[in-house]
Amino acid sequence: MDSAALLDLLGNENRRRILRLLSRKPCYVTEISEYLGVSPKAVIDHLRKLEDAGLVESHVDDGRRKYFSIARNLRLEVNVSPYEFGTKSAYSASPNLDITSWRHVSLHVDRDRESDPDSIPEGNGDPDDAGRGDEETLFGEDQEGEEPPDLTALAADLERLERLENELSMAQRWVQGRLTETLDRIGAHFEGVDGRFYSDLLRGLTDGPATAEELARRLDAPPDVVEDALEGLSAHGVVELDGDRWVLVAGSASP
Amino acid sequence: MDSAALLDLLGNENRRRILRLLSRKPCYVTEISEYLGVSPKAVIDHLRKLEDAGLVESHVDDGRRKYFSIARNLRLEVNVSPYEFGTKSAYSASPNLDITSWRHVSLHVDRDRESDPDSIPEGNGDPDDAGRGDEETLFGEDQEGEEPPDLTALAADLERLERLENELSMAQRWVQGRLTETLDRIGAHFEGVDGRFYSDLLRGLTDGPATAEELARRLDAPPDVVEDALEGLSAHGVVELDGDRWVLVAGSASP
Repeated sequence: MDSAALLDLLGNENRRRILRLLSRKPCYVTEISEYLGVSPKAVIDHLRKLEDAGLVESHVDDGRRKYFSIARNLRLEVNVSPYEFGTKSAYSASPNLDITSWRHVSLHVDRDRESDPDSIPEGNGDPDDAGRGDEETLFGEDQEGEEPPDLTALAADLERLERLENELSMAQRWVQGRLTETLDRIGAHFEGVDGRFYSDLLRGLTDGPATAEELARRLDAPPDVVEDALEGLSAHGVVELDGDRWVLVAGSASP
Repeated sequence: MDSAALLDLLGNENRRRILRLLSRKPCYVTEISEYLGVSPKAVIDHLRKLEDAGLVESHVDDGRRKYFSIARNLRLEVNVSPYEFGTKSAYSASPNLDITSWRHVSLHVDRDRESDPDSIPEGNGDPDDAGRGDEETLFGEDQEGEEPPDLTALAADLERLERLENELSMAQRWVQGRLTETLDRIGAHFEGVDGRFYSDLLRGLTDGPATAEELARRLDAPPDVVEDALEGLSAHGVVELDGDRWVLVAGSASP
């Protein structure tokens, strides 16, 4: 869903309180209205907006009472830095996502390894295999013919996932700091306001090759200024032309 | 900074446009007003709110013109799921953060290894050492007596950090899905509405030991109901009393 629409929705304290309430249990309008101390009419208005956005859904129970609940998982990330105001929102990723294909992050959520630290890990000892490969059998589909996991195992999964979530969040904050630091250093190679412009230009190329026109549009800058800057970076050996598209020389080395 | 205050600020489209503009370059009021097509008075009001919150700062240049810019790095995360409405905001983490101490996440941002995939990694081949240990010399403090990194190396750092950021974001979304799945499964062990309550109870204990009273307060539930539920979970072997505080049995096994 659109990040701007999501921020508009979440910018209202009463809508946040409704979401918090519904994350505890499904509720009907009168219940929400009494809990928040807000008129049923206002609650209905908030619920309609949340429903339109797909954040909330409703069902009618046997007593013909309409219950509202949170419709699905959604995640929003906002980065604010001297170089970026970035928002990203997305539904949660599939359990079948191949988390072993990531190049820069490995997750260690192996149940057996943790509960028995002396167990010998399988595999050939290749460092790149560390902690990988077991996740999908643990948190993915149920194994056919096996018993569903018992409560103790589920509680252990829960605890591990919560810790993993905290570490990932800390990792994101660490990366944000390193990104700003790197952009500062790139800027220091150039003079004055230009530093930020060159940083933006390089950052624009981290997504892949682009023509000068595409970069000019993305950076909202005059095409001839962008062209000149790219020629300058090219003289430094940082970028090069591949046909009519510019690429990072550093980036082209890693497949 | 407070997540609710941050969401209130970001819930306004014009304030988001101001932040986006300032992340490109420092601006003065007339510039912002013309760019947004909003009166200077309204711009000043938005800037004051952003400044009060510490998101934006100003300085006066030689020509005595007042420029506004983004004050510092900040990150906001919002999780919406049938079990959670969670918001978290924080400043970026220190470069000296010990990212090797994490138990569940490893980051691979090793410059040498990537640019020369055939190089033999140092270390004793212990899988737990994979990809660790080099990060702080790469993105941490400058090495004394060494040349500052050149533009090509900085551009490569930039590209790796952007990819790392994307992978971490995907990892967070994957974890969000697994958390919901695990809470669903825990709920399935119990009947009806109670399932969610037991899930919340277990989740409340993932942060560490707690008394029944503390849990009752955190879950906004009657203490005797919480007490009964904990006794029930105790009979399943999932939780146990340690003095007057309840602990996860699964959790107590991993130090």
